[in-house]
Amino acid sequence: MQETEYMEWVRRTLSSGYVGDDTAIVQMGSQETLLTTDLLVEGTHFESDTPPELVGRKAIAVSLSDIAAMGGAPVCAVISVCFRRGCGEGYATALFEGARNIAGEFGCEIVGGDTTSSETSCCVNVAMVGLPPAGGAIRRSGAAEGDSILVTGTLGGSLRGRHLEFVPRVREARAIMDVGKITSMIDVSDGLATDLAHILEESGVGAMLDEELIPVSDAAGAIACEDEKPALEHALFDGEDFELLFTAGADDAERLLALNLECGITQIGRIVAGEGIRLRDESGRERELERGGYEHQW
Amino acid sequence: MQETEYMEWVRRTLSSGYVGDDTAIVQMGSQETLLTTDLLVEGTHFESDTPPELVGRKAIAVSLSDIAAMGGAPVCAVISVCFRRGCGEGYATALFEGARNIAGEFGCEIVGGDTTSSETSCCVNVAMVGLPPAGGAIRRSGAAEGDSILVTGTLGGSLRGRHLEFVPRVREARAIMDVGKITSMIDVSDGLATDLAHILEESGVGAMLDEELIPVSDAAGAIACEDEKPALEHALFDGEDFELLFTAGADDAERLLALNLECGITQIGRIVAGEGIRLRDESGRERELERGGYEHQW
Repeated sequence: MQETEYMEWVRRTLSSGYVGDDTAIVQMGSQETLLTTDLLVEGTHFESDTPPELVGRKAIAVSLSDIAAMGGAPVCAVISVCFRRGCGEGYATALFEGARNIAGEFGCEIVGGDTTSSETSCCVNVAMVGLPPAGGAIRRSGAAEGDSILVTGTLGGSLRGRHLEFVPRVREARAIMDVGKITSMIDVSDGLATDLAHILEESGVGAMLDEELIPVSDAAGAIACEDEKPALEHALFDGEDFELLFTAGADDAERLLALNLECGITQIGRIVAGEGIRLRDESGRERELERGGYEHQW
Repeated sequence: MQETEYMEWVRRTLSSGYVGDDTAIVQMGSQETLLTTDLLVEGTHFESDTPPELVGRKAIAVSLSDIAAMGGAPVCAVISVCFRRGCGEGYATALFEGARNIAGEFGCEIVGGDTTSSETSCCVNVAMVGLPPAGGAIRRSGAAEGDSILVTGTLGGSLRGRHLEFVPRVREARAIMDVGKITSMIDVSDGLATDLAHILEESGVGAMLDEELIPVSDAAGAIACEDEKPALEHALFDGEDFELLFTAGADDAERLLALNLECGITQIGRIVAGEGIRLRDESGRERELERGGYEHQW
């Protein structure tokens, strides 16, 4: 699920809603099941000249990331596409190929869908169903004072291409759950600051981050050279990183940091009492992090 | 699932796909589950001046109809909406209210969703999960020679308003399954001729319909007065009726026809050996029905 300007409002309106998780947990007969949906729209999440195989790929990947953030295993998906009229069969073929390839890579079967067309623009919706891990889905609400805050990979500058080609952290989620108890988890879709705030709110705690520990991506650095904003700001606010942001007790965190994941795991701070995010620089000076320093680029 | 010009192609491309049913049947752990998705697009399935509560209502109703066509019980849904920028909170509130009201009416909980916005147009996707009936989901593939062909309600002219306000036949599906063995079923989304053809193809049989038995709606009659096409043609081809079209053995059909459903049930013909649809007029003359006499209006 992507956060947007409407989402908070939608949460209020729909008395249900995922209410604090990436994905709904629903009881289907005898089976607890994960259900998520993501809508990508041309001009907002991809452009008219984005290669269609990457559009299809991204549509599936964002849902895989949502399932991963709950510690779940993707099972199957349905895909709805509205093609721009006249886009041609080649476009449609490539879009579905991109979707099918990444779904297959993660053991997720595309079991059906819906297609239609419009004059104005293309959009793709993926709804994905998964199974929670044996110990139950990881929620956003379990972070406790003293927990370490960890993140996979690097953050910021996703706009440079990674938002289309990121690897959803399904395998990494499984790997980290194998070595330690994860107390809360989310995927970084709206930026570290916003997504960490979700964990803090749901858990009723605050966070202290160490500026120099935040893993800034090369892309964030490159953009920073151009727009003269600090690279750290990109890492904190850009969004669409689709990395896993999670918390664990100190002992578990040690084992997690020793994990040999290709994408890497970094401890960026600690859960503290209170609320909100505080940032500490190298000299030990602290400041409050304003939520949403600038708007989500997508 | 709506049939479109792309759907056959999509079926070929996605080696899976619902392949002949309205909804995917997926094994989720220990539980067999139904999963369907439907995408409604402004300018195609509704207009910019369609009341938003009816847009939300329709988005949920078409998925309820898909679940009903499998004999299933809707459990929950996720809804994705792309709002046109500047449509206002009133529009969004009304859309979700319309969705929530009809979902609630059928015991289906909206458990989450996704929202975004675009410059050009509005669209709504609903993915719905349901449980199959105790005896297993009703497929399109079970019609056998000699079976009666039955339909709920009346057909044609849905464009006049019913496509926005139809009652999904969830309760009716349950009622008919209670009194007889349903050998195949589909909801009439693309028109009687097209949807019956799906049953025939999946079942490897043909159909003989009696023209004078086909329940033509008042709306189809009204449109026929204006466009000078026979009302029967509207009943056969208009689409978006969202009635149940189903088959049953002769004994079961008798019990079904005695059912006191408010919408009514009509026997319109019989399953025969061979393939395709033949129409018989009152004088007993037969003709082959050309598939897709004219294009789906939506």
